[in-house]
Amino acid sequence: MFIFAQTQLLQMNYFSSDFKLGILGGGQLGKMLLTENRKFDIQTLVLDPSEEAPARYSCNAFYRGSLMDYDTVYQFGKMVNLLTIEIENVNLDALDKLEEEGLVIFPSPKTLRLIQNKGRQKDFYVEHNIPTAPHQRFVDLNDLRKSLEKDELEFPFVWKCAQFGYDGNGVKIVRSASDLNNLPDVECIAEQIVPYKNELAVIVARSVSGEVKTYPVVGMEFHPEANQVEYVICPARIDEKVAQKATEIALNVSEAYNHVGLLAVELFQTEDDEILVNEVAPRPHNSGHYSIEASYTSQFENHLRSILNLPLGNTASKVAGIMVNLVGAEGFSGPVVYENIEKIMAIDGVTPHIYGKRETRPFRKMGHVTIVNENMTEARRVAEEVKNSIRVISVQ
Amino acid sequence: MFIFAQTQLLQMNYFSSDFKLGILGGGQLGKMLLTENRKFDIQTLVLDPSEEAPARYSCNAFYRGSLMDYDTVYQFGKMVNLLTIEIENVNLDALDKLEEEGLVIFPSPKTLRLIQNKGRQKDFYVEHNIPTAPHQRFVDLNDLRKSLEKDELEFPFVWKCAQFGYDGNGVKIVRSASDLNNLPDVECIAEQIVPYKNELAVIVARSVSGEVKTYPVVGMEFHPEANQVEYVICPARIDEKVAQKATEIALNVSEAYNHVGLLAVELFQTEDDEILVNEVAPRPHNSGHYSIEASYTSQFENHLRSILNLPLGNTASKVAGIMVNLVGAEGFSGPVVYENIEKIMAIDGVTPHIYGKRETRPFRKMGHVTIVNENMTEARRVAEEVKNSIRVISVQ
Repeated sequence: MFIFAQTQLLQMNYFSSDFKLGILGGGQLGKMLLTENRKFDIQTLVLDPSEEAPARYSCNAFYRGSLMDYDTVYQFGKMVNLLTIEIENVNLDALDKLEEEGLVIFPSPKTLRLIQNKGRQKDFYVEHNIPTAPHQRFVDLNDLRKSLEKDELEFPFVWKCAQFGYDGNGVKIVRSASDLNNLPDVECIAEQIVPYKNELAVIVARSVSGEVKTYPVVGMEFHPEANQVEYVICPARIDEKVAQKATEIALNVSEAYNHVGLLAVELFQTEDDEILVNEVAPRPHNSGHYSIEASYTSQFENHLRSILNLPLGNTASKVAGIMVNLVGAEGFSGPVVYENIEKIMAIDGVTPHIYGKRETRPFRKMGHVTIVNENMTEARRVAEEVKNSIRVISVQ
Repeated sequence: MFIFAQTQLLQMNYFSSDFKLGILGGGQLGKMLLTENRKFDIQTLVLDPSEEAPARYSCNAFYRGSLMDYDTVYQFGKMVNLLTIEIENVNLDALDKLEEEGLVIFPSPKTLRLIQNKGRQKDFYVEHNIPTAPHQRFVDLNDLRKSLEKDELEFPFVWKCAQFGYDGNGVKIVRSASDLNNLPDVECIAEQIVPYKNELAVIVARSVSGEVKTYPVVGMEFHPEANQVEYVICPARIDEKVAQKATEIALNVSEAYNHVGLLAVELFQTEDDEILVNEVAPRPHNSGHYSIEASYTSQFENHLRSILNLPLGNTASKVAGIMVNLVGAEGFSGPVVYENIEKIMAIDGVTPHIYGKRETRPFRKMGHVTIVNENMTEARRVAEEVKNSIRVISVQ
């Protein structure tokens, strides 16, 4: 299968041709994947459940439909020559069937199946000797309670729902029995709390033919309440040795998955400078948005290059980059207004990205701002200024 | 009118709002204007005569129709809150009427009228003491012949058709009476041949409120046969003094036009280091394509910022940039193939832009390639390699 796909793709002429790339999901990642690659004039089809999907205007054809529905995903797949995703939660049975019938899909359904479930994902790291925080898997909340009763699990721990959780949902620190009452009764894992200095991420691009490049290690700073990334800093301000170790581990993860496309590997740097894998995303990722302005080749372009088996672009940076997420301010719901956007646009090296969601809600991801500068200290100062100026509110 | 427009625009909320920007023309400039600004989620409507217009996929709504037809342009204008162009050859009477009825149009119909006709444009420079090669205007070829007979005009001279000529069409060097036989019988100018060292260009961004920024001076190298730009080099490899003079003159031109938006000013550097204005384009321009990869803010983003009266972005470069035009190879017509595109994509800092024209023809502008590098000499070497590798041919 792998060899077949490779040969087939190598013979393809993608540029201004009849070749069709399908993308499952039309959110902000899909939008940027499209706008960053429109320059290649490759035909793109997008499937998304929302008529207001941010990616709907940059593709050649937009289809509205559920990503979890077997028939919808299968029929969509039959229209394209190559299929990729911008969100992991898609119907995998349909993908299996399409792959069986000869469609090339990156990331592969097998990799998606491993990643969709956090329990399976963690087991995979253990099996492949990839460092990760110790964990236990539970089929439901009752299963977890029994483990506590038998003293096989101890407070405190990190509870994570196994499937469909992301950013701010599905992750809780459980310190006592009373904390259990607020948890949903779903398949989950309990993870040992490992104190860490930094959250890091490494994006690996790996092409069909096995060419591999890594982006510089980035550092992530989280919003304490929303548990969403507040700043992504490239390069991370860490020791060169730690950066090397993080990069090596990310490469090991990519190889273990035999992954094609982008793989964003989220990591913890522990207090004794160990690197632990937190989780991965097999697609362009929030931690790589800075690359549009700062890198020689953006993460979105390298995702495309990878899955089309084109040579990978230079992942190095032209300048230091910081990304600030724009999330809906608390207390505002309704038609969005970006307060003070003109003010931040007056600062050199500041580029707002508005995803195209017409309604804001507290903590909803509405956009991001990239700050680039030759000097990291200055970039960090500007990022703070941006953060303190712009507010995502709604019309009064 | 000017003050009214300014106040009106300052109160607008453009981002994910009901505000609608209309663009006359949907070629490659329109395409890049859209893809570079999709990040702001501003609604865009495009009018172009071709169903295959490169910009058709990145706008919110595409309308097919003639840009020279009064009713078509007028009706299109009635649907938008602000109108701009990506090509000068549009129906100006319709724009006059729309402006009269309160629509904000940048560049203004008045500026477009001055620029559409090369005779009028040249007269304008003379009136405003802007240095330009001496010229004479003629209503038709017969008028020009009479002038030669009366010894008011001498061989050799540069003949230029006054309207609707561009890149490789409408400009000829006339050395003798026999050369006249090949010229079309249209309104024209005769320009004195001034020997020059370099062709330069400066892009000026000027916003509604009068904020002005200039991009660095670029140098242009032309293909000897096709009379099309082969390389655009940023920054131009010229003396700082010459660059300063070129920038000052470009600023004077922008001010003379009271222009809003981008103004690309094409210049000659004469053998004794004088700067002469050749002609201008009141829009994003081929000489600024390098800015997508090399500049802090692309020309396309700054055109939008200018006409929306947003603060202008930094026009400085992160790295040296060179642009190579991709034109159809001689001897090939039909469905396009970009031979060796994979080969050039393997080189660091090389980004092809494919405009999305499915059919190639000899010398047709099909795309461009940007080469960026920290080092200009290396960038120039790579540009040559790119030029010698990629060929725009058609399916055999």
